[in-house]
Amino acid sequence: MKFDTQKQIRFHHCDPAGIVFYPQYFYLLHEAQEDFLAHIGYPEHELIASGIGVPIVDLKTEFLGMCRYGDEINIRLSLSRIGNASLGMRYEVHSASRIPDAGKSLKLLAKTVVVCSEVPHGKVLPIPDGLRQALLPYLDTELEENKS
Amino acid sequence: MKFDTQKQIRFHHCDPAGIVFYPQYFYLLHEAQEDFLAHIGYPEHELIASGIGVPIVDLKTEFLGMCRYGDEINIRLSLSRIGNASLGMRYEVHSASRIPDAGKSLKLLAKTVVVCSEVPHGKVLPIPDGLRQALLPYLDTELEENKS
Amino acid sequence: MKFDTQKQIRFHHCDPAGIVFYPQYFYLLHEAQEDFLAHIGYPEHELIASGIGVPIVDLKTEFLGMCRYGDEINIRLSLSRIGNASLGMRYEVHSASRIPDAGKSLKLLAKTVVVCSEVPHGKVLPIPDGLRQALLPYLDTELEENKS
Amino acid sequence: MKFDTQKQIRFHHCDPAGIVFYPQYFYLLHEAQEDFLAHIGYPEHELIASGIGVPIVDLKTEFLGMCRYGDEINIRLSLSRIGNASLGMRYEVHSASRIPDAGKSLKLLAKTVVVCSEVPHGKVLPIPDGLRQALLPYLDTELEENKS
Repeated sequence: MKFDTQKQIRFHHCDPAGIVFYPQYFYLLHEAQEDFLAHIGYPEHELIASGIGVPIVDLKTEFLGMCRYGDEINIRLSLSRIGNASLGMRYEVHSASRIPDAGKSLKLLAKTVVVCSEVPHGKVLPIPDGLRQALLPYLDTELEENKS
Repeated sequence: MKFDTQKQIRFHHCDPAGIVFYPQYFYLLHEAQEDFLAHIGYPEHELIASGIGVPIVDLKTEFLGMCRYGDEINIRLSLSRIGNASLGMRYEVHSASRIPDAGKSLKLLAKTVVVCSEVPHGKVLPIPDGLRQALLPYLDTELEENKS
Repeated sequence: MKFDTQKQIRFHHCDPAGIVFYPQYFYLLHEAQEDFLAHIGYPEHELIASGIGVPIVDLKTEFLGMCRYGDEINIRLSLSRIGNASLGMRYEVHSASRIPDAGKSLKLLAKTVVVCSEVPHGKVLPIPDGLRQALLPYLDTELEENKS
Repeated sequence: MKFDTQKQIRFHHCDPAGIVFYPQYFYLLHEAQEDFLAHIGYPEHELIASGIGVPIVDLKTEFLGMCRYGDEINIRLSLSRIGNASLGMRYEVHSASRIPDAGKSLKLLAKTVVVCSEVPHGKVLPIPDGLRQALLPYLDTELEENKS
């Protein structure tokens, strides 16, 4: 299973060239992570209130095309790995761009590793069992990075 | 040669866990890029006014430690590659953290690839000669990613 | 008529005290303005593409209560004045906060004045007739600031 | 006495019209407040660590001109009022704009009221005596809003 969430490119995401300034994509990806955790029954604000955070330790991003103010985007999230304490996450941003030369819809591909940690001190914690069960359906064993 | 620039972690960089929220680092790295381009005589706002931008196409980041409000950081920038139109950039963020458990000073390591492009249409452009000459002293041929 | 739009307080809106850092509210208010303009048939990105922007010239805000990560908010927008080129806008942010001591739901009251202007040079423009007609139903002549 | 601090307009402050998007000014004003509190010996991150915050309750801003990427600005801060728990602050943003039509250097005038409060619960606290003494030299009794 994959998780899809729709967002709009807002005025404040865009830079003087009229396109999304790249750090803004990471707010959108984090919103997708928030939407995903809420969808599987573990809203991040409740996780944090219970003393569990998921800070990022590794990020790889390919910027494949430009998004512009007014674009509707779909963010697709799947899991590449569920470890003892760490999670590999994969995000695809597709856009239905209004710009003719923007035929390719895949605009961004990101892979993150987050680690289950105690808030606020950052001590690594095993992923709680209930959360692990809720995550499992989204593990995609076909992802390139899982193939030997 | 390497380029160093000092920044402070500001209130607005920090999240409910009291540490820098990761997308905020990329504003700081971009400020370092702006400082660097100004230092070598090619302020980015003048480059853009002359029709040249340097959008990012690839980003790899390792988050190695936490920075907190009030921390003083040093961002060190060097170049891993100068291509026909693309530039490999490497950033190290070191912190003099006030938190005892934060002994390691290297907090973040990022590698970016940016591409010289026409503003606003994004057509790839060769790096202008003057800019190339100004960049050359910062090319670090010892970087791991340049070794075969 | 009033225009209502719902938003969620996201992780990135919140500061080390766990509450929304105040400049973040203005991104949310601007999103409400974007939603409103789209709703009445004049999406801001199309206005801008046609050479018309609505930069802000005056802002008054009362911060009446705190919003926290995970809060659902409603932003209510109405118009206090439709001038030749300027618009008075009024925003109320109500929250269904999960925090017991946060009984009052009105968290923020903001009044803005924006001016119809040429993009990118900023020359003041009269509000186009079609836009004016679309705005009129949202003019609230009962607002305190319209009473003598 | 007045407190002056210099900032640069950065790429990430600017919107698709090439000018500062207005919420970004409030990050700059908050940086000025941080610089001011550090200057008088009460760095905000130490205040917060000691359990004292200064959340905003009222904001009035006039946007008088545009700032653009690359502009050098000066932010001048003075105090219009020192109450039992609240502080009236006044900010002027002056720019040495590179744009010919931008002759007037005063770009923004803001007045804020902040309230000394317990972190994180928000209970109002009297301004501590030491901080009050450090603030007093910056009280400007000539400000219009202090005249009867």
